[in-house]
Amino acid sequence: MSGEEKQDGSLREYYVGVDLGGTKMLAALVASDGSIIAQEEIPTLAKQGADSVLDRLGSLIEGLLAASPGGRGIVRGIGVATAGTLDTAKGVVTYASNLGWRDVAVASVLSDRFACAVRLENDATAAAAGEWLAGAGEGSPDCLFVTISTGIGGGIISGGRLIAGTNHNAGELGHITIDGNGMLCPCGNVGCLELYASGTAIGRRGAEHVRRAAEGASSHGALARLAGGDPDRVDARLVAAAAAEGDADASGILREAGRALGIGLVSIFHLLNPQVVVLGGGASHIGEPLLAPMREIIEERCLPSIRSQVRFVASALGSSAGAVGAALLMTRNDN
Amino acid sequence: MSGEEKQDGSLREYYVGVDLGGTKMLAALVASDGSIIAQEEIPTLAKQGADSVLDRLGSLIEGLLAASPGGRGIVRGIGVATAGTLDTAKGVVTYASNLGWRDVAVASVLSDRFACAVRLENDATAAAAGEWLAGAGEGSPDCLFVTISTGIGGGIISGGRLIAGTNHNAGELGHITIDGNGMLCPCGNVGCLELYASGTAIGRRGAEHVRRAAEGASSHGALARLAGGDPDRVDARLVAAAAAEGDADASGILREAGRALGIGLVSIFHLLNPQVVVLGGGASHIGEPLLAPMREIIEERCLPSIRSQVRFVASALGSSAGAVGAALLMTRNDN
Repeated sequence: MSGEEKQDGSLREYYVGVDLGGTKMLAALVASDGSIIAQEEIPTLAKQGADSVLDRLGSLIEGLLAASPGGRGIVRGIGVATAGTLDTAKGVVTYASNLGWRDVAVASVLSDRFACAVRLENDATAAAAGEWLAGAGEGSPDCLFVTISTGIGGGIISGGRLIAGTNHNAGELGHITIDGNGMLCPCGNVGCLELYASGTAIGRRGAEHVRRAAEGASSHGALARLAGGDPDRVDARLVAAAAAEGDADASGILREAGRALGIGLVSIFHLLNPQVVVLGGGASHIGEPLLAPMREIIEERCLPSIRSQVRFVASALGSSAGAVGAALLMTRNDN
Repeated sequence: MSGEEKQDGSLREYYVGVDLGGTKMLAALVASDGSIIAQEEIPTLAKQGADSVLDRLGSLIEGLLAASPGGRGIVRGIGVATAGTLDTAKGVVTYASNLGWRDVAVASVLSDRFACAVRLENDATAAAAGEWLAGAGEGSPDCLFVTISTGIGGGIISGGRLIAGTNHNAGELGHITIDGNGMLCPCGNVGCLELYASGTAIGRRGAEHVRRAAEGASSHGALARLAGGDPDRVDARLVAAAAAEGDADASGILREAGRALGIGLVSIFHLLNPQVVVLGGGASHIGEPLLAPMREIIEERCLPSIRSQVRFVASALGSSAGAVGAALLMTRNDN
């Protein structure tokens, strides 16, 4: 049995989507129309090793299926979204720093246990697919998904197709250069967008400010107060909170990050001429103090014929986007 | 009649491709396999006005058809590649600075005269399609075409499809930012790749050098001698000639341009993960003095999983690429 009978007599198909992260793993039972039937999240506990993680992931999926109407037999496939370097053809995570994994055969472990197809996908690509197929980008053939979080990632949909690249590594939006003479990025490139506009970048600049304030070298405003004078307590959220209290230095940090984001997006827009840009990730919730300067740069610098087409929308699926996208990509042969 | 009978009894189909430039227009009769049956080029004489240009273009096409085996009736469609802003749906050149045109209905004029479908395409996009379908990128589903000439342009093929963007403006490779604090570009953006790596940029830096040499502010080497001390005589070709004679300053100019090209390509590679990069345009013939520093930057800065996939090849179709691509795009419904 491969699905349950719908009211119109046809079979409804179900897929499992998993977002396997370094700290949490989220599994969702997803119908082929993108609706989430059930969803659950547990800690990854990556330190216990790959066997343990995959065993508990299996149990997480079992639990979802046990609670679902059709039971275990209804699942047509499992899509797993995860960070790191993947061999998608073999279903192997070749390297994932956040999990401490090397050459872990995720697909074969899960397909043995659940007797169905299993497919790996890059987590940001899967989230892009989720937003495009069942979220804020639904219906747009030319859709860009940008997640602003610890890093900056994303995915590209163009002409109604997910842009994968020759070995599934396309979409490294955070690692385009915005300053060719700028900072060295751990990725090896120079002046990468995420060094200037990610949540981590905002937190780092906030911490520098608090450190200087403690040394008397910069003003001691809301940010230093909220951090209790401790640079290690500063993250993007605290910078945003200080800016909301009127701290001009905190606002300046967000403004610079937003402008950097705008500079990166102009390059991407000039290459890809998208219609919809879905913004997700924790730092995107900072909202206008980050996004207004981003839009200003786009207004100033982007070609009008390209700029005039772009519509910004907020992520609709939030932290479920990766799991939903991984599940829905199982339904498509062309991606 | 829509084609001539091939030896196997099937009909062979023919298309006309036109590359309509500011100084020259080139028309080619192209078979559906991409082979050029006949080709001819005449001056555009844009100053005579759009009616005159389109009339002489019609005569150019008539001449090609008159000399072809099947005569005028064999043509299934005409593809016109041109610069400027296009309304591809209506077949109108809305604005072309190199032709001095505003709202010229190219498609209807030609379709009335030749009683066949006519389609406009951006010239760099058409050249990309030509190289991909019948040139140096043939057979690669993930192919990037980069033309280094007066400006820098190009086109993107990903997953076996031409990336058009939501209103056919994708592929502005020359207008991605490599230095967000850099020079203002006439396009409105800041620090655009073509300001640092185009033939024009190389010529401009060469001219500055000759000017400084004339003022005694920099060394008086082969470049100043070849230019006869006149900055206005310096172009990219002269800089390359001086570098070939061992002028270290000229070599340095090419090296900086090559590095800028590398910085831009790393961003594009990180977004698109291509397999083949086709290099065309006059300045690409400078060769190693420009391309070796480009490859060095890519080697230093590009993610290994992406860098390892990329193969560079020289344009195979040269100045015919735009016409061949415009013709072949007529054969495809999905682009």
